[in-house]
Amino acid sequence: MNEIADLLIHARWVIPVQPAGVVLDDHTVVVSKGRITDILPSADARGRLAARKVFDLPDHVLMPGLVNLHTHAAMNLMRGLADDLPLMRWLQEAIWPTESRHVSAAFVHDGSLLAAAEMLRGGITTCNDMYFHPEAAAEAFATAGIRAVVGIVMLEFPTPYASDADDYLRKGLAARDRWQREPLIDFAIAPHAPYTVSDRSFARALALAEELELPIHIHVHETAGEIADSITTHGLRPLARLARLGLLGENLIGVHAVHLDDADIELLARHNCSVAHCPTSNMKLASGIAPIPRLLEAGIRVGLGTDGAASNNRLDLFQEMRHAALLAKVGSLDASAVPAHAALHMATLGGADALGMADRIGSIEPGKAADLCAVDLGALHCRPCFDPISHLVYVAGRENVSHVWVNGETRVDKGVQLLHIRDSELLRIASVWQTRFGN
Amino acid sequence: MNEIADLLIHARWVIPVQPAGVVLDDHTVVVSKGRITDILPSADARGRLAARKVFDLPDHVLMPGLVNLHTHAAMNLMRGLADDLPLMRWLQEAIWPTESRHVSAAFVHDGSLLAAAEMLRGGITTCNDMYFHPEAAAEAFATAGIRAVVGIVMLEFPTPYASDADDYLRKGLAARDRWQREPLIDFAIAPHAPYTVSDRSFARALALAEELELPIHIHVHETAGEIADSITTHGLRPLARLARLGLLGENLIGVHAVHLDDADIELLARHNCSVAHCPTSNMKLASGIAPIPRLLEAGIRVGLGTDGAASNNRLDLFQEMRHAALLAKVGSLDASAVPAHAALHMATLGGADALGMADRIGSIEPGKAADLCAVDLGALHCRPCFDPISHLVYVAGRENVSHVWVNGETRVDKGVQLLHIRDSELLRIASVWQTRFGN
Repeated sequence: MNEIADLLIHARWVIPVQPAGVVLDDHTVVVSKGRITDILPSADARGRLAARKVFDLPDHVLMPGLVNLHTHAAMNLMRGLADDLPLMRWLQEAIWPTESRHVSAAFVHDGSLLAAAEMLRGGITTCNDMYFHPEAAAEAFATAGIRAVVGIVMLEFPTPYASDADDYLRKGLAARDRWQREPLIDFAIAPHAPYTVSDRSFARALALAEELELPIHIHVHETAGEIADSITTHGLRPLARLARLGLLGENLIGVHAVHLDDADIELLARHNCSVAHCPTSNMKLASGIAPIPRLLEAGIRVGLGTDGAASNNRLDLFQEMRHAALLAKVGSLDASAVPAHAALHMATLGGADALGMADRIGSIEPGKAADLCAVDLGALHCRPCFDPISHLVYVAGRENVSHVWVNGETRVDKGVQLLHIRDSELLRIASVWQTRFGN
Repeated sequence: MNEIADLLIHARWVIPVQPAGVVLDDHTVVVSKGRITDILPSADARGRLAARKVFDLPDHVLMPGLVNLHTHAAMNLMRGLADDLPLMRWLQEAIWPTESRHVSAAFVHDGSLLAAAEMLRGGITTCNDMYFHPEAAAEAFATAGIRAVVGIVMLEFPTPYASDADDYLRKGLAARDRWQREPLIDFAIAPHAPYTVSDRSFARALALAEELELPIHIHVHETAGEIADSITTHGLRPLARLARLGLLGENLIGVHAVHLDDADIELLARHNCSVAHCPTSNMKLASGIAPIPRLLEAGIRVGLGTDGAASNNRLDLFQEMRHAALLAKVGSLDASAVPAHAALHMATLGGADALGMADRIGSIEPGKAADLCAVDLGALHCRPCFDPISHLVYVAGRENVSHVWVNGETRVDKGVQLLHIRDSELLRIASVWQTRFGN
């Protein structure tokens, strides 16, 4: 007398992330109506349960889908456009001129679609995005079937997308109205950074975030220069200014947070803010080493972000997990800093928690959405394997992701992407934009 | 009237490494009798040349095979055995007990074979190895068909392999005699480190290296502690002691070289020593950040090493290239430090030069051995592509390696390894050792 589930996934190892550090040998995850309903030993499941679809993963880890807590997805079209330049030259000579000439709704749609395909293929099931034309990004994410928090971006200066801060907000809110009923799409208020947003606009952002119960997604303390400028202009460090404006709260996701003094950390902790750590971007742009071990000690929630493909240049959370662990060790001269399970937590439940979505995603627990990722550790370069959590962080890569599910729907099956748009069409889209950039 | 070559490789891009930064569009590399004989535009080659084997690589970079300037290949059997531990606890609680119980000629043969397979699959065509039982490592490398410099390891304390420094040397030299005529196998003298080798043994090592014209492969200045201990014991920093003993010369490859003061750098430069930079290992063991930009400015030759799989945990020079670039930037707070082409140089010609093999390998030039690697940049996550050198370092991974040749013989073809030993047998070997370690 079998029960019938929608999906049964039998895996060599299930790593639920919650409880931390646990590895379940030969377990099965049961999914019905898009949600996880049970986790039990495969020996029990095989006798008792049946399902419409069954996956046997004898060399695989089954883990929660990864949460990319900070990206600019559309920048996939500018991947590797300029490298090895200091931040301001990179922005002024390469990124901003390209953006001002080319960014449009079509650009954002196409770039976000390519990014979504790259992310899903690499096990990322949720992304927290910030870019112009959020309505076009939302459409691309919905098409690809990735869970996304789309930033209602705002800054003071005019771009082809919007004329001033109010215009950014108006357009972003209209996008939210249009995509509100799409189950995979959520929104955040995304004031770009303290140095591009005025006190008045921050007040509007705060009012909207409170009224609509949205996260606030903002770059903070990425460079030492931005802090010095803020002291000159406002008489305060940026986080102190945000605190004075009332922006700091449990819904605030501070991106980068590289340059922090004790008072900054105390502010983040006291207001229960979270941090999106982007180790690769911080290294590539020479921003510095974020004090992640100290943030974790202070109880601050930390997730991982890839940043955009123009400053990384991969949307690859396996890489970010590894870099989070490695950079924390060399930065603190302590090899035990950010051990493998802590990096895995950041890349999953840490990001979900920062987004206010820990009740829905980020771990394999009954009742949560079946956002899942399977990693094949059967390859020679993954052997031997004494600890699969160590292998996820230090050995495997996104190339070992074999299966991905979002809300219980299969997005990647044996390494093959199951999008509505074929790879050949995605490659054609990429080549159209490459040609337009005059290369 | 066609000439007949052994091998023609038509590639979308040929990156010869020498001259630096050059990217040849739609070029062909011609190989005969294991050597590169010509590099010419494919439009010319297609009309004029024929070959026994022709490879068409329309989305690929063809580059020199990678040179892994420092590894302990046999440690592949201990991959991920222990992580997130400080160096001394890692050695004392995990690595040394396992080694003392299990290391044997069979262990070294099997581990080195697995490592050779992993390295070849990832585009590494030459490795510089240091471990016990060099005769067993040489056999494994010869079986796999990877070019290798096998270290005649020596240290003072007894192990199951050898009783004292003289015994290590005697056994290593016997291995060299046995493998001398194998064209892919060379040897180096490998005194383990200043803290494990006496002045008397260094004198013997030096005499042998001079007499036999061998490189000297040694760990130096990996940790601050080792320097403090040397000052206590010898009254000198380790490099100063090596200089006094006459060890420093153009054949010396100093591994790690993390903690260097101005005088250390001046010594390395004056004696024309080279450095094997192991960025992942230095991060993972929290050793510190090697001052690579300063070494390059001083004209010191730098190559890249993976270290062993127990402290990395991948034998992946694509990762090391990326980490060399990223770590130099964040370490010097200069985003222009170690640009992509400098990282590529280190991973190829820099390593070859350090080994005294720059006349034979490390770049695509007529007369050099056809040690080559093709990287497929056709995947979605590699698009768009504005600069293939940037993509090799910041975007691609070893998973994108499609073809590998050593001495003109195909070792990897469309991602499939062509060894004499099948993958299933290699996996079986790995599982035997995993079981023996009691896991």
